Amino acid sequence: MELLDAFKWRYATKKFDPTKKVDQSLVDKILEAARIAPTSSGLQPFEVFVITNQELKNKIVPFAHDQQIVADCSHLLVFAAWDNYTAERIDHIYSLTTSEREQPADRYKAYTDRLKALYLNRPAAENFIHTARQAYISFAFAIAEAASLKVDATPVEGFINDEVDKLLNLKEKGLKSVTLLPIGYRDEANDWLLNLKKVRHPKEEFITEIA
Amino acid sequence: MELLDAFKWRYATKKFDPTKKVDQSLVDKILEAARIAPTSSGLQPFEVFVITNQELKNKIVPFAHDQQIVADCSHLLVFAAWDNYTAERIDHIYSLTTSEREQPADRYKAYTDRLKALYLNRPAAENFIHTARQAYISFAFAIAEAASLKVDATPVEGFINDEVDKLLNLKEKGLKSVTLLPIGYRDEANDWLLNLKKVRHPKEEFITEIA
Repeated sequence: MELLDAFKWRYATKKFDPTKKVDQSLVDKILEAARIAPTSSGLQPFEVFVITNQELKNKIVPFAHDQQIVADCSHLLVFAAWDNYTAERIDHIYSLTTSEREQPADRYKAYTDRLKALYLNRPAAENFIHTARQAYISFAFAIAEAASLKVDATPVEGFINDEVDKLLNLKEKGLKSVTLLPIGYRDEANDWLLNLKKVRHPKEEFITEIA
Repeated sequence: MELLDAFKWRYATKKFDPTKKVDQSLVDKILEAARIAPTSSGLQPFEVFVITNQELKNKIVPFAHDQQIVADCSHLLVFAAWDNYTAERIDHIYSLTTSEREQPADRYKAYTDRLKALYLNRPAAENFIHTARQAYISFAFAIAEAASLKVDATPVEGFINDEVDKLLNLKEKGLKSVTLLPIGYRDEANDWLLNLKKVRHPKEEFITEIA
């Protein structure tokens, strides 16, 4: 199947069948897509939490507009972005990079010095806007990979981030939750959205060509 | 090819072959993937500009850290998010939705009233953080679709947004540029990044399972 057909097939599933679990091999592929997504300067400033614990999923429901998909899904992915950039975080990934590429340890020093001059001199809130955007690229790659595997996934942005952060102890980890991604299989008989047409702005409104 | 293999194949191309143009049928698929990407409440609060005009691409180079990929690419996509939510913008997409789904015009009124109560009572800057994130989902879908078609694409976030906004008259349109996506074909002989290993945080650091 072409990816574009998978994108047409996917929709924001509103009712999961709680008896159907996603095979671990497929979950692994979705997480790997999230992991290898591109990010600004390759800093990959976020992590993913994968929740199958039913009690914990249930606890998140009231913080997510009471959406039952959070409880009924097979796996609940939580994307959490760095609350700030630090010298240690920047050095860590570049140290890994030079090591894996067998390059001199200072190969990217001039570059990371520029990143530090930029990021470490501005407020955490501004950096979080940037780290959260990177998490969205990964989030979208996970959605795309799920669609390509015919796994249903519902992007969820409306939830009380602080409460989810508390449940997952994210503050201690220097992280803030950004998005939720329940994955699983649609309950075909009971999903009101399943057969409604996908509506988007028409091409003429969405695209401007400058030739 | 599995999508995950396409994700492994892709990389941030640093040197495009300026003589190789992407076929319009492939560009159309990439733009369609961007168009049908999911967004918060389906508001799709962004637009895409597709630049093939060489003079305009050249003008953007100095505002994008002098990166020649902006000039050498086949098509330069610019993702621009709404500078704010407005009642008109919210009503427009939901009017389209009821019309295309042949539903009563007030089918989603309670819902759009809630969106308006939330979005129209907070600062434009806060809403732009939200609209920009939605543009990132679409941006990532375009990157994914390009990879699946073996079209090279380089996500570019570091550029002087205000200058690009001026060149494209975005302010008058209530838009602000968020990301650039040069697409085209790699210059295999001259791209320093092509053969370097893709490095990411290892799974153990990136993923936390809560079972």
